[in-house]
Amino acid sequence: MIRYSKNPVVRPEDVKPSAEGFKVVGAFNPAAVKFGNETLLLLRVAEECVKVKNKIRVPAYKFVNGDGIPQVLEFDKADPDVKLKDTRGVVYKGIDFLSSLSHIRIARSEDGVNFTVDDKPFIYPQNEQEKYGIEDARVTYIDGKYYINYTIVSENSWSTALSVTEDFKTHKRLGVIFYPENKDVAIFPEKVNGKYAALHRPNNSGFGKPSIWYAESPDLLHWGGHKCVAKPRDNRFESMKIGGGSSPLKTSEGWLCIYHCKGDGQRYTLFAMLLDLNEPWKILKRPEKPLIEPEADYEINGFFGNVLFTNGMVEENGRLWIYYGASDSCSCLIISTVDEILKTLK
Amino acid sequence: MIRYSKNPVVRPEDVKPSAEGFKVVGAFNPAAVKFGNETLLLLRVAEECVKVKNKIRVPAYKFVNGDGIPQVLEFDKADPDVKLKDTRGVVYKGIDFLSSLSHIRIARSEDGVNFTVDDKPFIYPQNEQEKYGIEDARVTYIDGKYYINYTIVSENSWSTALSVTEDFKTHKRLGVIFYPENKDVAIFPEKVNGKYAALHRPNNSGFGKPSIWYAESPDLLHWGGHKCVAKPRDNRFESMKIGGGSSPLKTSEGWLCIYHCKGDGQRYTLFAMLLDLNEPWKILKRPEKPLIEPEADYEINGFFGNVLFTNGMVEENGRLWIYYGASDSCSCLIISTVDEILKTLK
Repeated sequence: MIRYSKNPVVRPEDVKPSAEGFKVVGAFNPAAVKFGNETLLLLRVAEECVKVKNKIRVPAYKFVNGDGIPQVLEFDKADPDVKLKDTRGVVYKGIDFLSSLSHIRIARSEDGVNFTVDDKPFIYPQNEQEKYGIEDARVTYIDGKYYINYTIVSENSWSTALSVTEDFKTHKRLGVIFYPENKDVAIFPEKVNGKYAALHRPNNSGFGKPSIWYAESPDLLHWGGHKCVAKPRDNRFESMKIGGGSSPLKTSEGWLCIYHCKGDGQRYTLFAMLLDLNEPWKILKRPEKPLIEPEADYEINGFFGNVLFTNGMVEENGRLWIYYGASDSCSCLIISTVDEILKTLK
Repeated sequence: MIRYSKNPVVRPEDVKPSAEGFKVVGAFNPAAVKFGNETLLLLRVAEECVKVKNKIRVPAYKFVNGDGIPQVLEFDKADPDVKLKDTRGVVYKGIDFLSSLSHIRIARSEDGVNFTVDDKPFIYPQNEQEKYGIEDARVTYIDGKYYINYTIVSENSWSTALSVTEDFKTHKRLGVIFYPENKDVAIFPEKVNGKYAALHRPNNSGFGKPSIWYAESPDLLHWGGHKCVAKPRDNRFESMKIGGGSSPLKTSEGWLCIYHCKGDGQRYTLFAMLLDLNEPWKILKRPEKPLIEPEADYEINGFFGNVLFTNGMVEENGRLWIYYGASDSCSCLIISTVDEILKTLK
C-alpha cells in the first residue's frame, strides 16, 4: 500500500472554471473507471466566486429549458440581511446560498497517474433538484453500460440520482433512486441472488448514527429490501458516521469494500471491509485499524483538512488503484494489489 | 363534516394490555378498511409499564426465535445512571429506552362506530428492527390482498415496512420498503401509469423541512422515481412539517388526500389536498384552511395534546368515514361525504 509519489494526481488549479467569475477550489472525491485504454476520473469540481472587496459573491444556477446557467450573486458585506452560516454558506433573508457548488468533470489518463482534465463539465446541475450542486459520483459497469450515481443537493436536502452513459461524452438522467437524506451509494457490478444490489447511507437524526445499508433492485431504478449492514463502531475513527466507497470489488474471499469513517475531531479515515459473496449484508471481515489515515501534507491541509474520502477504485489483473479525495481539495492515489488489501483483513 | 357525537370510538381503556405489568396509554392513529361486512381499525396501541414507587419501569421486548416477548425493565429512580430524556424516554448508561412502545391491534365493527377490540395484538415487534415498536399503519386493498405498511422504530431510527394479509388474522412480513428516516407512507389503491404508487415522507435535517414525496414501484417492494410533491407552506399550520394520511381516494376530480401538518406550538391539524389523477406528484387543489383543527376536549387534552393525525379512511357510495387519532391517545371519527370534502377544495 503505497501513496503515489507525485500525489495529488489532480489539483484544483488543473481545472478550468465552468463560468466567468467562478474559481475552482476543489477537484476531489473522484469516481474511477477503466474505459478503453484510458482511466477516467469523474471528479467533483467545487467552485466558488472570485473574491471582490466589501462584497460577498456566491455561485448559483438559473434553470432555463433544462439547462443550468451559472450565475454570480453579489451581496454587500454591510447588508444586515446577510448572515454567514459557517465556512460553507451564506443565508440572505432566510434563503440558503452555498459558498461553493459542485459539478462532475472528467479527467482522462493513459497510465492512471497523469491526467488531463476536460474543459467542460460532464454532469452539470440542470434542475431545481440539483440547485445546490452535484457531488461524489460512483461508476459501475454492468452489461455494456456505465451507471453513474451521484449526490444531488437542493432545498429538499441531499439524495442520490442515477445516470447512464456508454461513451462518457453524454449521459442520460434516470431519476432519483434514493430519496433524502441519502448519499454514498455504491452499486455492485453484478446481480446478487438475481437482483441488482447497492450499499447506501441513510441519515439518522433520532436514534443511531449514519450507517451503511444494503438494498436490492430488479432494474437499478427501484430499490427495496433494505437492511443495515454496518454501523459506526464505538471508537475514535468511527464515532460520528461511516459511508460506503466505490462499487464493491468481487474477490475469491468476498466483496471488498473500502469505506470512509468520520471520527473524533471530524477526522476522516479509510477502512477496508469484506462482505459475504452471496449475502452481502453480512460482514466477514472488518479490521480494527484503518487502511489509511491523514498523514501527508495534502491530506492534513486543504479546504477541509484531515478528510480522506474514496469513491473510485480500478482493478486490473490483481493490481489496484485506489483514488481518493484529500482535504476536500484534491484527488490522490494509492497503488496496491487485491492480495495486499486482503492480507490487511486477516 | 361532523365529528361523531360519541367520539372517541376507541379509548385506551377499551384495550387489554399485551403483557402483565403493561398498561395501555394510547389506542390511536388507526388505519381503517372495509373487510366483508365489517369496518376494521388497525389501532396503534401504546403501552407503558404500571408505575411502582421509587422505580422507573420501561417496556421492552426480548426476541427469541422470531418472536417478541414483552419485558418489564426496572431502574432505581436514585440510580445516577438513569437519565430522563423527555416525557417519552429514559437513557440508561447511554442506551435509549422508550417509556412507551407500540404495536398494531385490530378493532372490529359492524356499523363503523361501535368497535370491539381484539384481545391479542395483530402486528407485534418480532426483531431488532422493531425493537422500539410498530406505529401508524395504513391499509391498501389491491387485487384481492390487503397491504399494510407501518412505521418500525429501532436503534436504526424509523423506517417503513410492509406486510400483506388476506384475512386480518395473520399477516406476512415483506420487508423494509422505505429506509430511515421515513414514515407516513400511503400506497395508492391502483397502479398509476403502469406502476404502483405511494406517497412517503422522508426526513430533512439539513436544508428544507419534512415534505410529502411521490414514489413508484413495479412490485410494491422496490421503490424509485422519487419526486417531491408538497412542502410545508410558510404558515402557522405547516411551519414544522407535513405528512400523508391514508391511501389516497380516487375521485372524478383527482386523488383526494387528507394529510397532517405540524405547525406552531407543535399543533397538528388535518388538511385536504387533491392530486392529479395521471400525474399524482402534481397538486391540483390545496386550500389555505385546515379541514379540522383541535377543538374538542379529547383533541386538546391527552398524552400529547393538540395532535390530530389521520391514517384511515373508509368510503362507501360517496359516504366517507375519516378516522383519526386525537392527542396521541384515542381514535375518533368524522362522518362526511366525498362531495362535501371536494366542495371545501373549491
